[in-house]
Amino acid sequence: MNLPLLVETEAVSYVIGDGAIEKSFSRLDEFNRIFIIMDDNVEEHCLPVLKQKLPSLNISGTITIISGEENKSIHQLIYIWNELTRLNIGRDDLILNLGGGVLTDIAGMAAATFKRGVQFINYPTTLLGMVDAAIGGKTGIDFSRFKNQVGLFINPACVIIDPIFLKTLEKLHWQSGFAEVLKYGLIMDRELWQKLEGKNYLEINDWSPIISKAAKDKIDIVRFDSLEKGIRKNLNFGHTIGHALESFYLNSENPVTHGKAVAAGMICEGWISSKVFDLECKSLESIVKMIDHNFKRFSFGKEDISQIMELMKQDKKIRDNKQKFSLLRKIGKAVHDVEIEDKMIIESLEFYINRKKCNN
Amino acid sequence: MNLPLLVETEAVSYVIGDGAIEKSFSRLDEFNRIFIIMDDNVEEHCLPVLKQKLPSLNISGTITIISGEENKSIHQLIYIWNELTRLNIGRDDLILNLGGGVLTDIAGMAAATFKRGVQFINYPTTLLGMVDAAIGGKTGIDFSRFKNQVGLFINPACVIIDPIFLKTLEKLHWQSGFAEVLKYGLIMDRELWQKLEGKNYLEINDWSPIISKAAKDKIDIVRFDSLEKGIRKNLNFGHTIGHALESFYLNSENPVTHGKAVAAGMICEGWISSKVFDLECKSLESIVKMIDHNFKRFSFGKEDISQIMELMKQDKKIRDNKQKFSLLRKIGKAVHDVEIEDKMIIESLEFYINRKKCNN
Repeated sequence: MNLPLLVETEAVSYVIGDGAIEKSFSRLDEFNRIFIIMDDNVEEHCLPVLKQKLPSLNISGTITIISGEENKSIHQLIYIWNELTRLNIGRDDLILNLGGGVLTDIAGMAAATFKRGVQFINYPTTLLGMVDAAIGGKTGIDFSRFKNQVGLFINPACVIIDPIFLKTLEKLHWQSGFAEVLKYGLIMDRELWQKLEGKNYLEINDWSPIISKAAKDKIDIVRFDSLEKGIRKNLNFGHTIGHALESFYLNSENPVTHGKAVAAGMICEGWISSKVFDLECKSLESIVKMIDHNFKRFSFGKEDISQIMELMKQDKKIRDNKQKFSLLRKIGKAVHDVEIEDKMIIESLEFYINRKKCNN
Repeated sequence: MNLPLLVETEAVSYVIGDGAIEKSFSRLDEFNRIFIIMDDNVEEHCLPVLKQKLPSLNISGTITIISGEENKSIHQLIYIWNELTRLNIGRDDLILNLGGGVLTDIAGMAAATFKRGVQFINYPTTLLGMVDAAIGGKTGIDFSRFKNQVGLFINPACVIIDPIFLKTLEKLHWQSGFAEVLKYGLIMDRELWQKLEGKNYLEINDWSPIISKAAKDKIDIVRFDSLEKGIRKNLNFGHTIGHALESFYLNSENPVTHGKAVAAGMICEGWISSKVFDLECKSLESIVKMIDHNFKRFSFGKEDISQIMELMKQDKKIRDNKQKFSLLRKIGKAVHDVEIEDKMIIESLEFYINRKKCNN
């Protein structure tokens, strides 16, 4: 077994790889008391793993919320604040956020805003959490039909990324994180892309090297641009249209996963890249093929496009009221702040719906 | 007329004094659109002043909340988030927070957490806002019966402190800020204390030099310790007991002002200082005399003390579950992190109730 990797940045320490949980123990002893925030699924499947790996951990109290993106809500945030009050948690205590992206987002916001800031450590338990959500200090909740409308940038003290938690999940739940892994390949890590090409996420057995590579890609970006003023925007490839699709389905009978929405967004924004930056047809086709090999297409229709466009207008990345995209120049190289006309965005959604061929 | 004073710190620019509003105009033009958050009183009395001083200011929209400490609530925070959504405010826009301490606290939190952070400028309109609440980046709301239980440290881009707004207030509303002015005198500015001794706030005509001195005192502290790890704790003199009293009255029929609560807290904590640090009887008596000359005593009784003690346990300043105080060594010199036994705190409240004499 390889030793877990330690990455220290100015703001955050990361421990990544098999054995990361055990390694994290020494980081817990400078605090007064330790509390855990998790969701009901995590309590059942992941808490036992954490306790087994940290047998001498003294837990002073736990808070359990309801799992699911539809519960990343102001109601659950208020519930956590009430529980933090009930447990009389103070600024010298430490909170362990144990869970996937929804959990670390909402619990990070709750901790950071309770008594103006209680320190927390993220223990992501899903692939999406390990390679994306738990890294980079974005916290928040969905509000008024919009994803992450309310939140803040705040760093955890540490992020402990241990692939062992993936074994607690059904393979289906690897899919969301896989979309982000593919994204790192496309925007900055051609080697990772080539390693994954042709694969289906359900067939991957050893996630450890993939997680290490993807997590390091994200850390490399956020350490230099924590507040998303420049290069961090590259991470938004696939997300401008992806978020709008996620919002579109958020209150429907079948809300979609973040990963599926981003996968669809990457097809659309890949197509826009081919129009704006001459991303080669061959590359676009390999992107579409890889995504279709891993993600089923959505079935929204032409009549839904105007509503999707409306939702896009609320995107946090909007500057000067104009929609700016992060796009690909080629596989492994992204650029940000590209202004795109509504007409082209609409065409990209039609490209997606109609499964058109590339013809730039 | 003196020119307004400009104080630039690493994080924030301050413009202080007569004419500060006009001076602020040049700071507004790098933003896309400008919005104002205020309360109903401010809309009536202060907005006209702002518009008159900034005739060419282009306001894209306004949000008005209900005034009053009892409305520094999660409900109004949610109202502001909804309004920010309705106005489609983005990260390139600017919010002007126009109002007293309650307004800048809640609106600062709303702006800082909307789309993970919209920039804002504070225009305090009350004495308390000018010398305290608008400076130093503390934002938040009351929650679950506790003052400022939820919030964050986040700096405004600028703070514009123009005494002209005081003219929009009845003199009674100067009282709350006056408690904080006295506090700066006691903890760090003997000269200010001596200048004020014997005065009643209702008789003060020229606030400008007092505001400048008090605001600079606060800026001097928060610029070196923005997160309240050390010297900033000195500002809590009078506030540990003061906040508990404020919480005690918060849901009563007669909620009390922050200033009155802090004034009472300074009598109690002044007494503790005389026990712990040999603060001279003469000094304690001059403190008590000055406070009684400006603030009417509360009429809580011995039977209320246990509840007040309970509320104190929720104080954000509690470390290792022990109550730590900021106390006076002498007038003009404070120390922080002094651990005090419950018994002595109770005795200090009795000293307050019984109007005892100093006898250390």
